[in-house]
Amino acid sequence: MAIRLTVACPDQIGIVATIGQLIAKYQGNIIEANHHTDAGAGWFFMRHDIYFPTDFTKLDQLQRELENISQALQLQWQLIQPKRPKRVILMVSRQSHCLADILYRWRSKELNIEILCIISNHQDLAQEASWHNIPYHYIPVPKQDKTAAFNQLAETIDQYKPDLIVLARYMQILPPFLCQQYPGRIINIHHSFLPAFAGAKPYHQAFERGVKLIGATCHYVNDELDAGPIIEQDMVRINHCHSIDDMVRLGKDVEKNVLARGLRLHLEDRVFIHNDKTVVFN
Amino acid sequence: MAIRLTVACPDQIGIVATIGQLIAKYQGNIIEANHHTDAGAGWFFMRHDIYFPTDFTKLDQLQRELENISQALQLQWQLIQPKRPKRVILMVSRQSHCLADILYRWRSKELNIEILCIISNHQDLAQEASWHNIPYHYIPVPKQDKTAAFNQLAETIDQYKPDLIVLARYMQILPPFLCQQYPGRIINIHHSFLPAFAGAKPYHQAFERGVKLIGATCHYVNDELDAGPIIEQDMVRINHCHSIDDMVRLGKDVEKNVLARGLRLHLEDRVFIHNDKTVVFN
Amino acid sequence: MAIRLTVACPDQIGIVATIGQLIAKYQGNIIEANHHTDAGAGWFFMRHDIYFPTDFTKLDQLQRELENISQALQLQWQLIQPKRPKRVILMVSRQSHCLADILYRWRSKELNIEILCIISNHQDLAQEASWHNIPYHYIPVPKQDKTAAFNQLAETIDQYKPDLIVLARYMQILPPFLCQQYPGRIINIHHSFLPAFAGAKPYHQAFERGVKLIGATCHYVNDELDAGPIIEQDMVRINHCHSIDDMVRLGKDVEKNVLARGLRLHLEDRVFIHNDKTVVFN
Amino acid sequence: MAIRLTVACPDQIGIVATIGQLIAKYQGNIIEANHHTDAGAGWFFMRHDIYFPTDFTKLDQLQRELENISQALQLQWQLIQPKRPKRVILMVSRQSHCLADILYRWRSKELNIEILCIISNHQDLAQEASWHNIPYHYIPVPKQDKTAAFNQLAETIDQYKPDLIVLARYMQILPPFLCQQYPGRIINIHHSFLPAFAGAKPYHQAFERGVKLIGATCHYVNDELDAGPIIEQDMVRINHCHSIDDMVRLGKDVEKNVLARGLRLHLEDRVFIHNDKTVVFN
Repeated sequence: MAIRLTVACPDQIGIVATIGQLIAKYQGNIIEANHHTDAGAGWFFMRHDIYFPTDFTKLDQLQRELENISQALQLQWQLIQPKRPKRVILMVSRQSHCLADILYRWRSKELNIEILCIISNHQDLAQEASWHNIPYHYIPVPKQDKTAAFNQLAETIDQYKPDLIVLARYMQILPPFLCQQYPGRIINIHHSFLPAFAGAKPYHQAFERGVKLIGATCHYVNDELDAGPIIEQDMVRINHCHSIDDMVRLGKDVEKNVLARGLRLHLEDRVFIHNDKTVVFN
Repeated sequence: MAIRLTVACPDQIGIVATIGQLIAKYQGNIIEANHHTDAGAGWFFMRHDIYFPTDFTKLDQLQRELENISQALQLQWQLIQPKRPKRVILMVSRQSHCLADILYRWRSKELNIEILCIISNHQDLAQEASWHNIPYHYIPVPKQDKTAAFNQLAETIDQYKPDLIVLARYMQILPPFLCQQYPGRIINIHHSFLPAFAGAKPYHQAFERGVKLIGATCHYVNDELDAGPIIEQDMVRINHCHSIDDMVRLGKDVEKNVLARGLRLHLEDRVFIHNDKTVVFN
Repeated sequence: MAIRLTVACPDQIGIVATIGQLIAKYQGNIIEANHHTDAGAGWFFMRHDIYFPTDFTKLDQLQRELENISQALQLQWQLIQPKRPKRVILMVSRQSHCLADILYRWRSKELNIEILCIISNHQDLAQEASWHNIPYHYIPVPKQDKTAAFNQLAETIDQYKPDLIVLARYMQILPPFLCQQYPGRIINIHHSFLPAFAGAKPYHQAFERGVKLIGATCHYVNDELDAGPIIEQDMVRINHCHSIDDMVRLGKDVEKNVLARGLRLHLEDRVFIHNDKTVVFN
Repeated sequence: MAIRLTVACPDQIGIVATIGQLIAKYQGNIIEANHHTDAGAGWFFMRHDIYFPTDFTKLDQLQRELENISQALQLQWQLIQPKRPKRVILMVSRQSHCLADILYRWRSKELNIEILCIISNHQDLAQEASWHNIPYHYIPVPKQDKTAAFNQLAETIDQYKPDLIVLARYMQILPPFLCQQYPGRIINIHHSFLPAFAGAKPYHQAFERGVKLIGATCHYVNDELDAGPIIEQDMVRINHCHSIDDMVRLGKDVEKNVLARGLRLHLEDRVFIHNDKTVVFN
């Protein structure tokens, strides 16, 4: 029986031993282990993939023991069943490349997720949804007053009880109340190497500046624009021959790859958030 | 006889034919050719590496014909003898990695340059100079008043009549009068992926922001800080394990490689500046 | 009117001038130009993207003049209308990642092609074809005797008169007679950095050897296995944590990206073949 | 007091707990921890960087306890004082780029090593040694009979009692008896992406094949040519414009960077060898 244990807590002597003993007591075999101590922040992070014997029946007991330990050591911990797919909502606007990529990885079983629905402020990508028999919610967001739309959006999201919301090139800025409702559970892909070219039209900004590399950033959404904790970034080389259209085209490949990698890291519980930065075990 | 011809001019029909005919008339064989039309700016750029017969004696005549053509077509052009080393001044502060790298590439004959002198606001790197029998000018730049120092600097530079000045981690901002005196002839290496983290202590800024890539930018110096035309950039992957010291160490390798590549591109006359951006033929 | 001119010929003085004059005579504006001289082989390669005035009616005349020139200079040349989509057949087995990627790039208008049909030795990917209304030919290839199957395959291909055949993870070795029928017009993606790990199961070979990078190679097919001229290659970093399954998963992304890039280069007439190697203008 | 502990042993339940308890008992704080289980080989690898209290006096006692544990668990283990520099011999032929790079990293304190001597079969690089006050042993290796030379070489090496021998472009194949004497302690840099282009003149082989990437491989030397366990690899992009000389020049940068990274990984005890492959914690 595969179990994943993640732990974050103040740094202190003996954590590894205490946790290790507990796992050994239940005959757990640690398949993959990652630790990190952030000396500056005085914080400790740990992720274990563990195999317990197939006839393992003491998960509740293990859980109670972790509960007891956690008070003494101030642990924030999670016991996760890695085989259970996470429940995901995808949000898009008109650009299809990130959506098509995630749908492909999902239908080819590369991503272990349940896709609850696709939400969009446009109707353009309804066909991609219908090909895959996924509900498609069209919630237009009028420029002049977005309040009603965002309320409808929040309601729609809430009814699905998602584990995760993925902004797969959703070109609206989410309202703060929504961001605060799902902390560490909204992932965005920004089409620049943040913090360079934050905000609108990053490829136009990059073209103007004459940079030789363009990039993409997958990050958690918080209530400051394009400033949430970064999960993954990558770049692609460009040169003077590339028009803005070329940059958009090349950028699409980086965007979808960076989003897919960031998403996978999150789904495998490899990302910890602390002080607006991430610890990523990969 | 190897000759290099670079041309920049308003875009128009027939340039390639006109230049091509002229070269063929003198029995020139075009070894490497690069063209670029910047449609937005309406500007044309060209670089030819040409072999003329070994007994070629008509360089003056060719030059005169180019002179005549250039008036009609508004050409900015240069006939360059690529074998002649360019005259270079290196400027440094206390960090040695870029200097050591350039000196190595020079003594192993990878860079075709004549190093006129090394100028520094510190004495730390005098030994590197003396190992290579290169004059070392120590010109300290006091914080409170830099005027006298910069005048002495300008004088020192001027007396050498350099083709190029390389700021190989020279940690002072050059005064505008000096930048304007050598337009397109001062190269700097900045230790970030510009425009991200311009200004001081970019690695500290990158650490704070939690980025997953750090970079370096080789650019021409103009009178706006870290805003000159970019020649070359590159990045290296980092993660949560890397301290600022680690980033400094990893960054050094990117910095020296990006500077070496940018410098080589300039020395081979592959870089054209237009509207604060570069066209780089490589 | 956009026209593309590609030229390959023995290296000689005056080619650029002659071609340049001809283009200028018809008021052609060279938008993008690439030349290369292979000094060792004594061969010259050229590719021009040209704009002629919109009311251009003299294409036939230009063609005749090129014909005349070509005899004197031994030119191999092509005048291409870049807007006309090339006619492409896709061939697959059971793996869908390369096919899905090409279909996505096609339906999002990133690739300027007409997809004539999909041919497979398996039925697995019929749905991808039907989603896109593309004919799907299922031609099984029995292990014991492949002759009949390959004849049927050749017939099917021939009837479509394709410009290009793309082996998008078609896991059969094409018979020599078919390779020879479409020289320089069959593109394959091999899932290793050739020539390392040629032949079957490259990821297993890579795992055994313990390499730290795995790659993919897009190449033209000739009648020697995995030995045709290479168009494009790329790599991705792996480590001791990666199982063969992980390598397969990571490799898929490299494979489809390398194939997409190689395919695009071919479609834009940027690839020249000479002596089993390629000149790629990009 | 900084201590490093490396462990390799048959995989079994409870290792992490047992070791963790022992470290906690001595008030050790685990700064960096890495584990890996090779499920196929049934083998477990662990590396801990630990801080013990500054007045720690019980290293001997800890060592004895580890000794006791190691019998029960079949541990192969090492307690290492990471501050103590490893004793290194550098071997070179005529090419200087790897040597100059290592010497630079050593004199700028990036590499924590003691350089015992430089051994070469040529006299070319004696100046680099004398600049740094390092003994230089010139041991020519005549083509017709290498026995005497290799005996002298072995004697010279033995007298220094090195922890590590670095072949920094030493262009001779070491005799088997010498390889067997220093298993896992001889590091080589090969100028190709192994296993592609093993043996002599890899850049010539790469040029002939027309590959689009060239690489370098840092590996341990065993008694089979270019077949030892791989520590690190990297690649650089090339194209049809690059001559063999260009490839040699570009390759130098990859070679020295890959060697420097591989060397650093070894020096930090991050590399484990098992079944001719490596586990590299980085």
